[in-house]
This record gives sequence, structure tokens and C-alpha cells, in this order.
Amino acid sequence: MDKMTFENHYMKQFDEELEEIRTRLMEMGGKVEQQLQNAIRAIGEADSKLAEEVIKEEQLVDNMEVDIDEACILIIARRQPAASDLRLVMMVTKAVNDLERIGDEAKKIANHALILANESGSSKGYTEVRHLGQSVISMLSNALDAFARFDVDAAMRTIEEDKQIDQEYKTALRELATYMMEDPRSISRVMNVLWVVRSLERIGDHAKNLCEQIVFVVKGKDIRHQK
Amino acid sequence: MDKMTFENHYMKQFDEELEEIRTRLMEMGGKVEQQLQNAIRAIGEADSKLAEEVIKEEQLVDNMEVDIDEACILIIARRQPAASDLRLVMMVTKAVNDLERIGDEAKKIANHALILANESGSSKGYTEVRHLGQSVISMLSNALDAFARFDVDAAMRTIEEDKQIDQEYKTALRELATYMMEDPRSISRVMNVLWVVRSLERIGDHAKNLCEQIVFVVKGKDIRHQK
Repeated sequence: MDKMTFENHYMKQFDEELEEIRTRLMEMGGKVEQQLQNAIRAIGEADSKLAEEVIKEEQLVDNMEVDIDEACILIIARRQPAASDLRLVMMVTKAVNDLERIGDEAKKIANHALILANESGSSKGYTEVRHLGQSVISMLSNALDAFARFDVDAAMRTIEEDKQIDQEYKTALRELATYMMEDPRSISRVMNVLWVVRSLERIGDHAKNLCEQIVFVVKGKDIRHQK
Repeated sequence: MDKMTFENHYMKQFDEELEEIRTRLMEMGGKVEQQLQNAIRAIGEADSKLAEEVIKEEQLVDNMEVDIDEACILIIARRQPAASDLRLVMMVTKAVNDLERIGDEAKKIANHALILANESGSSKGYTEVRHLGQSVISMLSNALDAFARFDVDAAMRTIEEDKQIDQEYKTALRELATYMMEDPRSISRVMNVLWVVRSLERIGDHAKNLCEQIVFVVKGKDIRHQK
């Protein structure tokens, strides 16, 4: 192989490796998206089997995080990427962390779904979970789409959705507090719903982080913590 | 400069750069530790001025995260570290994220301290906050000590502390639910305490993450998600 061919070959391999971690990150994103949808459905339909499935499958998401992280370190060590390639790899190590935490929150939601399904009782607060859940699923899906296309505009629009989610979250909290005051016997049950709502709000934050990372890779600009 | 001298010089500079990001991470750790202590004190002493200070200073912690992260990327791009040096830099980018989130939770605690201080009322749940707060402060302090000395044994011991914290957290939740049932008029007040207790539990998780990262740097072994 002459030098030129070797370099071309080397670059091609490098591009393929970068593409591969991106693909694996997208797969992980798809997995946590599904986990979230199932966890929310398990509440509404009191489906303890589905909830148990979400809980069991969290391990898959955890493994994905560790594997992708390892692949990133290998790429940096072997390929010594610079500029936007390096930003991409660094971004992936941050993004897997956010995805893993979304998976973790989905598992927490599934745990509460299990408790709620096993003790029959009122479905007070379920409407709030459904509404907020829909907004959060949609935000996460938009964040992953923006990621797949490295679309900065879509990422910026998705970041804005988090404000709406925070509003819906606050409204839900007020409703839940009212349910507890109206019927103190329902407190322990409503507290389960409260943690679900909290997890949904946290997932919105992680989806926002993902979008900020897209902007960082494409623009090289760190927009975290800007008010 | 002959080649040998140049290489020595180069390595010395590199070591200094690594040492510098480590020092900056420790400074950031000291800052969030202080933020946490002040936030908890602000609740017990109904000190709204102290709470406001914590809220204002979160910006400092945010800036530290962005700056240290940037320094890490620069080091990778310029120095192309390998093996344990690379692991150290990658670990720092994860650790700043955990520290920033601890700062964020401290700010949330301070926000609730402000609400609790401004509306006078019972101090139901304050004992739970004090107990759990002490455990979490101690765990974070141990995690930072283990980090300063790259002490794997201390890190492993500190990881174990998280179990104790989870137990105390669950006990506190039960107590808080009882307070709400006994006196439904106190619900909105106790909910503020509830979020504080939740934030403390989260901080325990982040301190655990820090310890796992110490093991990763020193041993090259990823122990996250091991049951």
C-alpha cells in the first residue's frame, strides 16, 4: 500500500468507527425511548407484566452505556481525533450518560407502576401522568431525531420544549397536592404518582442536555447553563 | 534543546496540565461541598440570606464545569494521552458533570429553604433533613478525599455508604408521609421538605458515581451498574 492509499484506508476506517458509535448511540436512544413509553403505558393500563419488563431491561441500557463509553476511549487512544471528530466522541460519552439516566428514570417509573398496579385504588393523578408523559416522550423523540440528523435548529427548538414541560410539571404538582389534601387516605398512593411526575420532569432535562450536546458538536459552542 | 530535553520538557508540561485539571476539579469539589453544607444549614436555621447566597453561587459551579471540560478537550487534542492519562482526563469530564449536578441539587435545596423560611410554620421533617444531610455531607467529603488521594479502598468504602443513605432516605419518606396524613394542612409545607430529602438522596448517588470513577482511573475497570 502506498502512503496515500494507506491514509485513505486509515481515514475510511476511522470514519466507520465514528459512524459505528453514532449508530450504537442511536440504538441506545431508541431503546430508552421504548422503555419510557412502556413505563408510562404500564401505569395507565395497570400492566405489571410490562412494568417488570422495563425493570428487567434496564440492565441492557446500562451495558450499552459501558460498551459505548469503552469504544469512545478506544477511538481516542487509537485515532487521536481532533477538532469536530474529538468533539463528537466527547459528546457521545456525555450523551450515553444522559440516555442511561433516562433509562434509570424509566425504571423508577416502572417500579411505581408496579406498586400502583398491585394495590388497587383510585387513578387520581393518572391524567397528569398521561399529559406530561406525552410531552416528554415527544421531546425525547425530537431530541433523538435532531441527533440523528445533527440538526442544530431542531435541537434549539427541542430545548424550548423543556419550558413547556416544566410548566406542565408544576401544574401537575399542584393538582397532586390538592388530591392529597382532599383525601389524606390517598397520600401514599398519590406519592407514587408524584415520583413518576418528578421522573418525567428529569427526563425532560436529560433530553435538553442531549440537544445542547448536538449544538456543541456542530457549532463547537458550549451552550450549557445559559439562562 | 536536544531531543531528550525536549521530551522531558514536554512530559513535564503535560504532567503539570494533568495536575492542574485535577486541582481545579478538587476546587470545584470543595465549592459544591460548601454549597451543600450551606443549603442544609439554611433550612435548619431558616436563614434566607444564606439560601440566596447558595442560589447565586450556583453560577460559579456551572462555569467551573464548562471551563474544566474545555481544558480536558484541549489536553486530549494537544497531548493525545493514552492509557491511565487518558482515563484520568475522561474521568474528569464525567466527574465535573456529577459535581455540577450536586451543585444543582444544593441550589434546589436552597430554593426550598427559602420557601420554608419565608412562610413560618412547623419544622416537621427538619430532623430527617438534618440526619440525612449529615450522612450525605460525610459521604461527599469521603468521596472527595478518596479522589484527592486516588485511594481505591476509600472509594470502595464510600460506595458502601450509599446503602445506608438509601435506608435513611426511605425512613425519612415514611416519616414525611405520616406527617402529611396526621395534618393535611401541612401538606404543601412538608412537600418542600420531601424535595429536599429527595435531592439529598440524589447527591448520594452522584458521590457514588465519583467513587466509581476513581476505581476506573486507578484500576482501569468500569464498576458502574454492578449489583
